[in-house]
Amino acid sequence: MTGILFHNAWLLTIDAADTQHRRGWLLVDGDTITALGSGSPPPANGAESIDCDGDIVMPGMVNGHCHMAMSLFRGLGEDVDNRLYRYILPLERQYVTPELVRVGSALAALEMIEAGVTTVADMYYFETEVGRVAAGAGLRAIVGQTLADFSPPDHRDFDEGFARVEDLVAEFAGHRLVTPSIAPHAPYSTGRKTMERVAEWSAAHPGVPVQMHLAESAAEVKWARDTHGQSTVAVTRDAGLLKPNLICAHCLQLDHADITMMSEHQVCVVTNPRSNGKAGRGTAPVEAMRNAGLPVAIGSDGAMSGNTLDLFSQFAPLSMFAKLLAGSRRPLPAIEIVRMATIEGARALSLNLRIGSLEVGKQADLIRVSLAAPRLHPIYDPYAMLVFAAIPSDVTDTMVAGRFLMRDRVLQTLDRQKTLADALQIADAFKAEIVRIDAADVGPLGETRTVR
Amino acid sequence: MTGILFHNAWLLTIDAADTQHRRGWLLVDGDTITALGSGSPPPANGAESIDCDGDIVMPGMVNGHCHMAMSLFRGLGEDVDNRLYRYILPLERQYVTPELVRVGSALAALEMIEAGVTTVADMYYFETEVGRVAAGAGLRAIVGQTLADFSPPDHRDFDEGFARVEDLVAEFAGHRLVTPSIAPHAPYSTGRKTMERVAEWSAAHPGVPVQMHLAESAAEVKWARDTHGQSTVAVTRDAGLLKPNLICAHCLQLDHADITMMSEHQVCVVTNPRSNGKAGRGTAPVEAMRNAGLPVAIGSDGAMSGNTLDLFSQFAPLSMFAKLLAGSRRPLPAIEIVRMATIEGARALSLNLRIGSLEVGKQADLIRVSLAAPRLHPIYDPYAMLVFAAIPSDVTDTMVAGRFLMRDRVLQTLDRQKTLADALQIADAFKAEIVRIDAADVGPLGETRTVR
Repeated sequence: MTGILFHNAWLLTIDAADTQHRRGWLLVDGDTITALGSGSPPPANGAESIDCDGDIVMPGMVNGHCHMAMSLFRGLGEDVDNRLYRYILPLERQYVTPELVRVGSALAALEMIEAGVTTVADMYYFETEVGRVAAGAGLRAIVGQTLADFSPPDHRDFDEGFARVEDLVAEFAGHRLVTPSIAPHAPYSTGRKTMERVAEWSAAHPGVPVQMHLAESAAEVKWARDTHGQSTVAVTRDAGLLKPNLICAHCLQLDHADITMMSEHQVCVVTNPRSNGKAGRGTAPVEAMRNAGLPVAIGSDGAMSGNTLDLFSQFAPLSMFAKLLAGSRRPLPAIEIVRMATIEGARALSLNLRIGSLEVGKQADLIRVSLAAPRLHPIYDPYAMLVFAAIPSDVTDTMVAGRFLMRDRVLQTLDRQKTLADALQIADAFKAEIVRIDAADVGPLGETRTVR
Repeated sequence: MTGILFHNAWLLTIDAADTQHRRGWLLVDGDTITALGSGSPPPANGAESIDCDGDIVMPGMVNGHCHMAMSLFRGLGEDVDNRLYRYILPLERQYVTPELVRVGSALAALEMIEAGVTTVADMYYFETEVGRVAAGAGLRAIVGQTLADFSPPDHRDFDEGFARVEDLVAEFAGHRLVTPSIAPHAPYSTGRKTMERVAEWSAAHPGVPVQMHLAESAAEVKWARDTHGQSTVAVTRDAGLLKPNLICAHCLQLDHADITMMSEHQVCVVTNPRSNGKAGRGTAPVEAMRNAGLPVAIGSDGAMSGNTLDLFSQFAPLSMFAKLLAGSRRPLPAIEIVRMATIEGARALSLNLRIGSLEVGKQADLIRVSLAAPRLHPIYDPYAMLVFAAIPSDVTDTMVAGRFLMRDRVLQTLDRQKTLADALQIADAFKAEIVRIDAADVGPLGETRTVR
């Protein structure tokens, strides 16, 4: 046989029993995990044998909510209010092209592979470009074509938006890594009528996940109340969108009835603690949603909101927000956060039968984490180490479907130098634009009145 | 002349005008910065010339509150309540020896040097050991001998504790890097009478900083109210301790009157956002304290509470807590956080005339930060990049008083392998003990009833 045998590894399987093998081994054949265990590994029989030197080997991480191309807007317009209308929408209208999406998504893929993310759920514009970048990089991805009413860069109306969705589905139907998705931006920016249209389309395409921002801000709650006399979750339900294939990002502004409604309809949730915390918008009721049985993944959001696309930087805020909310150290123990980053994240994306844990028959999506840093000494609990002390640079190897995307910190599928150079070239154009926006009057709907 | 000339550097000086030199140079002679500027560097004249390749060069970071030796307890007893009495105090009584303090402090020094910390304020037991480790490592440090009434590991009563303080002061008086300090643990664990004794001792030793945990928990507030009928800050004031040489760690449980009182007495504050957030205890009123004119440094706390000793991991929680408290993105912009990590931190430790910014005549305490990671692309604002995207492994060089402690990621003053091996050996002893504690009944005062 051929394949890869990892041995002398600290295997964190994240199976149902959270089984660890302190001196473990794991066999990959093709794209699949075919065997694993403790102690002496089986004979390699032609498989390449890799001594992991006691490092952790664990499932690759699942980034449940991202706008990959926005990596090019990273760090723009920090520490100011009204960012969506002042910076994001005008910049997107003017600058977002298929080329930008391609370059930004490649930069994001680079960053995520280096940080141990093996699956990402993305939603943006020109989304076929994102799918192509992910496929080329060997990253597992759900790619959602966004639909919105605020003159987004790739559709003038919803008919054009749906046409883009159809193109996306046609291109990636049956792809082994990339799953096409439809992504109504948010209730307030899609509107009840178009949400119904999405629900109808979705009923005819049951295998296509639906991604949507939901209950993200007080303004959205007010919109739902003023326009429909009910909560934004109830509007979404009445439009027919609350289904098990709905992946809801953010979910900050929920009351008990909303959570019950979401639980009854078995939707999935992605919490984005760093993005939400930085926005000062509040913290998601993660414990309450989990207690109601909702699968909750962890997302980075776009780099203009959360800055980094790894999951390590989400762990501490996620943990702290839950503990601060409860006034106790007990909520969301470290093991649960690691589960959210792996198997629960996979469950929220309906991928848990294929990925999210190291088990025989599952896809070989895994990472190796070096324990060499003084910062990681000593280790009493590997989950606490991962959640509270590890950083992206501790990841040395990233594998998706049996293929190394990074090995010994060296990228295998992307051209690092070219990707970074392309990104810097596009960013230079923004810098001048930002100076103009900062100097400009901004109207209530975001019209900049700068002379061009 | 001899010395070191850094050139082709992105200098963030953190001077009063936050001057940046995008293509800057900086000259170090001996332990001092002797010149800096933009554009073409002066002739090297015998100085070693270092091309920084556009990397950031900035002041070294100031960790305002740490218990270095507790690095050996990192990750112990996570996600449970009653840690102080259940884990920390019993473990300290049984295990904390001069040898443990030496090994744990060396591990902490290793981690901080690798993360760009050049100054640390520490408080613990057997503190002369900490001072010796810092001096040997070339780290700038304030080392505080702790005084407490809960049978700490190095003094049976306060007389013995004061004797340790005297020894510490005698050993490090006039040391060019290490400043001795006296550290009453907290109002509730020192008591009003001994606080008065510290105040009296302090008045006779005006150059010795006083470090204390203050207003850290609801239990402390209750103690002050029940025992003295006033706030814990008022108790501290009445004991005579509120002076400009008092460095107050945590400061979570403050009302407006407390902040006014602290401001009137010109005390200094260290906020420890990650430690506080993980404890679920609440968030410090950082904006209110800063608005009242108090210098606020950033601290890591001990690794058993905050897990890591770098400042990067404090930045996001510090920012998010301020923004969440205000419900806005505006509070504590990134530049202010970088100032807190450098010049404001130095001011809180009364070291701002010597360190905290890159200015002619100041000590050459500086770091170089590589911009190579995709995670740091693009950069619109270097401060936002440092606060929201950089991680410890981006630091390549750490210099204190003109001496490289790390250069090109290689440690210059500590034996990395030996330090890590010593740390793991001591940690192994704890592991068995923790299993016993976890299995034990615990009484209200923390008596474990385990059979030994």
